[in-house]
Amino acid sequence: MSDARKYFNLPSPFAMKRGGTLHGARVAYETWGSLNATRGNAMLILTGLSPSAHAASNTEDPSHGWWEGMLGPGKAIDTTRWFVICMNSLGSDKGSTCPASIDPATGEPYRLNFPDLSLEDVANAAHALVKSLGIDQLGCLLGCSMGGMSALGYMVLHPDSVRTHISVDTAPQAQPFAIAIRSLQREAIRLDPNWNGGHYDHERYPDIGMSIARKLGVITYRSAMEWNGRFARIRLDAEQREEQPFGFEFQVESYLEGHARRFVHSFDPNSYLYLSRASDWFDMAEYGNGNMMEGLKRIRVEQALVIGVSTDILFPLEQQEQIAEGLQAAGANVEFVALNSPQGHDAFLVDIENYSRAIGGFLSRL
Amino acid sequence: MSDARKYFNLPSPFAMKRGGTLHGARVAYETWGSLNATRGNAMLILTGLSPSAHAASNTEDPSHGWWEGMLGPGKAIDTTRWFVICMNSLGSDKGSTCPASIDPATGEPYRLNFPDLSLEDVANAAHALVKSLGIDQLGCLLGCSMGGMSALGYMVLHPDSVRTHISVDTAPQAQPFAIAIRSLQREAIRLDPNWNGGHYDHERYPDIGMSIARKLGVITYRSAMEWNGRFARIRLDAEQREEQPFGFEFQVESYLEGHARRFVHSFDPNSYLYLSRASDWFDMAEYGNGNMMEGLKRIRVEQALVIGVSTDILFPLEQQEQIAEGLQAAGANVEFVALNSPQGHDAFLVDIENYSRAIGGFLSRL
Repeated sequence: MSDARKYFNLPSPFAMKRGGTLHGARVAYETWGSLNATRGNAMLILTGLSPSAHAASNTEDPSHGWWEGMLGPGKAIDTTRWFVICMNSLGSDKGSTCPASIDPATGEPYRLNFPDLSLEDVANAAHALVKSLGIDQLGCLLGCSMGGMSALGYMVLHPDSVRTHISVDTAPQAQPFAIAIRSLQREAIRLDPNWNGGHYDHERYPDIGMSIARKLGVITYRSAMEWNGRFARIRLDAEQREEQPFGFEFQVESYLEGHARRFVHSFDPNSYLYLSRASDWFDMAEYGNGNMMEGLKRIRVEQALVIGVSTDILFPLEQQEQIAEGLQAAGANVEFVALNSPQGHDAFLVDIENYSRAIGGFLSRL
Repeated sequence: MSDARKYFNLPSPFAMKRGGTLHGARVAYETWGSLNATRGNAMLILTGLSPSAHAASNTEDPSHGWWEGMLGPGKAIDTTRWFVICMNSLGSDKGSTCPASIDPATGEPYRLNFPDLSLEDVANAAHALVKSLGIDQLGCLLGCSMGGMSALGYMVLHPDSVRTHISVDTAPQAQPFAIAIRSLQREAIRLDPNWNGGHYDHERYPDIGMSIARKLGVITYRSAMEWNGRFARIRLDAEQREEQPFGFEFQVESYLEGHARRFVHSFDPNSYLYLSRASDWFDMAEYGNGNMMEGLKRIRVEQALVIGVSTDILFPLEQQEQIAEGLQAAGANVEFVALNSPQGHDAFLVDIENYSRAIGGFLSRL
């Protein structure tokens, strides 16, 4: 399989926010388009918890990316105009240094010896990557979901490093409902005997915990409204049903199982735990003496687009309103777009038409 | 401990909706107040998935019941006026015959040899109980949550058996979001090796599966809005935190853990699985040639009160609107009350003030 990933070696040692350092760490990234002469057309995309840097197909890797409909020549994020960088988060296992990576101090995988990970560490790694490319100021910083929190961290920690910002389905801090969901996902993994304190391998792997965690994720990433239309109460055919007590009987159960099967072995469980907890920890109030709005007001950008969706139960619309309000109070020219897409939190990955209109429109007016 | 439970022996054999029969089965119930001379003041309460028949304190058992604030002399459900019966659902382990009961055919617990359980079986057991008390027509049938579905089953299966109806936080059929949640709860139990195909005992018990199931339940029974006010991002004190990797750190996590600990050994896991699946199966469309509204229109009551709450994600308000619309179309005089209580699905157990006003008001106008 072709691979478009490039790698950036982080400064070594790389100091982590909550203590500890990484030695010889790196982040994986991909790019689309070309940096122009003024270096003013750079856009960085920070991703949600699980995606890789492969946001869209490119010459080196023609396979579809996770935001294929949004990104490319002539698309909402027009790569004939923008030099787009998408980074795999530090701590994620899609090429960046993570708990599954070899700890140079021991020659063994870090596992739980990986230092505490914060989204500010993701942001700092991204900032170092951008600087290494000769870019002093991003033309646009775009963050989706968890990546939207990382982006807020980026801007508050690195003043004047971003000209315009696009904030997609995200939050200025984790609320207790989201913490409860993520805590339960982590617990399902931690309580799986095969997790074994982080010492699993391919033979003895926490499949059950990862499967429950993923299903709970998918339930909260989508929405009841979408599923009423999509699955209703449709039963599985007799041959599709599980031949065991209390086995699957409805299409929605089989849909979740399909999602879980694709995920369980494609994401390192320890990396999942680290990134999940980093999301719970993130709180813009830390930058405002305990006041989240004051934290947001420290961010300086010229223009911002903040998008949310009314069916999102994990990052509810009021949290995007807070971001919009905070950036506005900080002096930015803010557009706030509240969509009614039925797909819930994942709408940004599915309702490409409406997200394209909002993002493409904003970028075209810059 | 004093015990107010009475027991009614079901007709034997008792035929179950999906096939199979129970022999020598019984249901537990409690009563408050006195049946009047015309036998017109009887009210039956059908419960949610986990409560017992002990809805409120009474002479035999002065301990607080699960709806203590609602039920008693001078309360919204005034037991000086009403003769109130609350039944523990067939299949539940709070005194009624359930998968943990001894199968007289083998002398061993039924476990998974218990026949398929439907909410219509719960309804039929309740109807037999009511008849055994010499009551031909209930003055009021009240059902909460799962009990509201059982109540719909009761009314459609037993025409003219109910004069007025109160429907609380329930649905005319399970929607895919609720099915997904309950399926994942069941899966957490099924995949716990200690569940062991239903053959657990106190030493080898599916604590982990039950704990995850309960936490997921509590998350969906409450609401994000309530938790923002109640827990926000408050941390546990250092001595309250779990001393283990990825252990609990936020108050909301400790709250869920408390709920889970109280539940895990107080509810039989197999009974939980049976009742959970019965909730998924329930569908008023079965009584309307595949059309849920047509099914509701077969119910004949004089007056009905339908209550729901806008923060309920498990039984969303639109489902109570459907019930109200269906009963109205069937000719009943229907009051529909949509509350904005922040507590989500569990509001009927917590927001006693507003539920009292609605239920007490309806009953006082009869």
